[in-house]
Amino acid sequence: MPLPTHSNRFILSHPPTDLPVLSGPSPTFSLQTSPLPSLSPDQVVLKTIFISNDPAQRAWITAGLDPARLYTPPVLPGQVMRSRNVATVLDSTSEKYQPGDLVMMSMGWIDHLVTDAGNVDRKIEKVPGLSETHFLGALGLTGLTALYGIRDIARATGGETVVVSGAAGATGSMVVQIAKHVIGVKRVIGIAGDEKKCRWVEGLGADVCLNYKEEGFREKMVEATPEYVEVYFDNVGGHILDFMLTRMKRFGRVAACGAITQYNKGEKDGLKNWFEVISNRIEIKGFVILDFIGAGKGPAAVGELVQAYKDGKIKLGDENETVVDTKFADVPKTWMMLFEGKNTGKLVTKITDGAVQGSL
Amino acid sequence: MPLPTHSNRFILSHPPTDLPVLSGPSPTFSLQTSPLPSLSPDQVVLKTIFISNDPAQRAWITAGLDPARLYTPPVLPGQVMRSRNVATVLDSTSEKYQPGDLVMMSMGWIDHLVTDAGNVDRKIEKVPGLSETHFLGALGLTGLTALYGIRDIARATGGETVVVSGAAGATGSMVVQIAKHVIGVKRVIGIAGDEKKCRWVEGLGADVCLNYKEEGFREKMVEATPEYVEVYFDNVGGHILDFMLTRMKRFGRVAACGAITQYNKGEKDGLKNWFEVISNRIEIKGFVILDFIGAGKGPAAVGELVQAYKDGKIKLGDENETVVDTKFADVPKTWMMLFEGKNTGKLVTKITDGAVQGSL
Repeated sequence: MPLPTHSNRFILSHPPTDLPVLSGPSPTFSLQTSPLPSLSPDQVVLKTIFISNDPAQRAWITAGLDPARLYTPPVLPGQVMRSRNVATVLDSTSEKYQPGDLVMMSMGWIDHLVTDAGNVDRKIEKVPGLSETHFLGALGLTGLTALYGIRDIARATGGETVVVSGAAGATGSMVVQIAKHVIGVKRVIGIAGDEKKCRWVEGLGADVCLNYKEEGFREKMVEATPEYVEVYFDNVGGHILDFMLTRMKRFGRVAACGAITQYNKGEKDGLKNWFEVISNRIEIKGFVILDFIGAGKGPAAVGELVQAYKDGKIKLGDENETVVDTKFADVPKTWMMLFEGKNTGKLVTKITDGAVQGSL
Repeated sequence: MPLPTHSNRFILSHPPTDLPVLSGPSPTFSLQTSPLPSLSPDQVVLKTIFISNDPAQRAWITAGLDPARLYTPPVLPGQVMRSRNVATVLDSTSEKYQPGDLVMMSMGWIDHLVTDAGNVDRKIEKVPGLSETHFLGALGLTGLTALYGIRDIARATGGETVVVSGAAGATGSMVVQIAKHVIGVKRVIGIAGDEKKCRWVEGLGADVCLNYKEEGFREKMVEATPEYVEVYFDNVGGHILDFMLTRMKRFGRVAACGAITQYNKGEKDGLKNWFEVISNRIEIKGFVILDFIGAGKGPAAVGELVQAYKDGKIKLGDENETVVDTKFADVPKTWMMLFEGKNTGKLVTKITDGAVQGSL
């Protein structure tokens, strides 16, 4: 196979305040092409195979954010959109990597890259029965987020009831499984956006999963939580979070993980049930997985998750991810599915075109 | 002095959703008079001298609240409005109390009461230089709320910066003093509603106090917190809380004590800066002083506060309270001053009429 001569990449061109736009006079991203340099010593040529899609990426590109208030640096106009990638090594002058190796790296939305071997995170080992894409999700930052959030932040334990929003999403579906099968809490209630997702979440171990788009959702949640809930794991923010504040048991804990309903809203939904926090002594903790990783707890936790998978406590099938075949030119379009509620489990982009000659 | 023959009381007649109303066709409270029974054995006749006014009282009377979600039972229509009182014993068949004793009891908005001696909380001992009204405030539940909130809930310590809203209020003014002089934090920033109050708060020990009604308040707070703040003690909720979320340091703590700006709003101000909670790993804890009391920690903590007063670390002067001379018929009107920002420190109602003959 001939080596690529050019690299294609999406740069941030117009930081959005609301929903990103892919066309028109001010598109959020624009595609650029440049020649690929030749290999220097101890470098590799990488070709992106899979791209991880994460709600947090939306936060990195919002117009006018104060970098000091973000947990990772923002993506600035003119910079390549940041992402986690699984790539294959096309060529190498490094002893560490051989052509054909699969590696993990935060390459961004770029199809080919020549980079120092030291910039690559690590080689991905083949695990029988497991798709390598799971290392972008259930066995990667997503799974660690779920584990850290439900165990260390929310401190869910045996006799408790846990409610998880975004329960059919990448993080939520792992929270459901970890809470029910690894920690072994008494009751897990999922919240998701359609019936099919809800049934899938129940298959993962939720005692019940409620469809928030269905009429009567709130009444059903009230019925399902007659003694209120000790733990709410929030992936969505907005109205569902506001409602859940009214369902927290006295001294209940909220793990604030994400707010996907709000990222594309310049004018946020306001939380109005604040008095519940006071009168019911609710504890709320925001958290970011990077703290857990930074504390050196990542590798051991990945090991725990892999063990839980081997023990049958965590299911990692095709349904834990939505892998979308995508031409490189459509990478932003696939990413946008995150905000359309179209994915079940982790949303992964699979690059289907070779684009090795520098044109798409 | 002849003993009273009648008892006057304010009952809740129309639970409000917004600001309570004192007149018109549906007044929030109405005045009732009934004959005072004669004394049975082991009873006392009490006459209210002082009434404590507390923002939390507003929460007890809101229409349609679920009693299970309140930290004390609501006041129901037809019931006497609940309050903490300092009363004098007019007559007694109990060995425990003598005519002339000052006592503390949750009598409510009632001028005279015949009750079992066992219902009285305790006798108030005279402390030289201290007005007995302070036992309704700085040396009562108010002071304990401040101590518990800033020390146990927010866990403020030496090198930190603490922001206190409602800093000229009963609780806030104690938080300022405890944080600065008892705990000894590095920097205390108050927020209050006018210049005079702000200067008073600075006199108590705040390094600076900002007037939230003044134009440029937010810019001044940003200037005053270049390295953000570790602790925010919130007495007000609403827009100030929402703004302060943007000034929290990473891993900062919010003690959620009250929301006086919201109690009279049927439609609450929404909190829109929720994403700060996630991205800056903010911890929020609601709390209620009754938990601290219930855990048996009250008496020792009152002792600590009295000692801090004797050591000169806490000032308790006339400015720590606003004592309003009030005819019994105007008790609701004085209470409403809480929501008009008219009090500095604890707002105390002093009953000036005898009303001993049952007519006002």
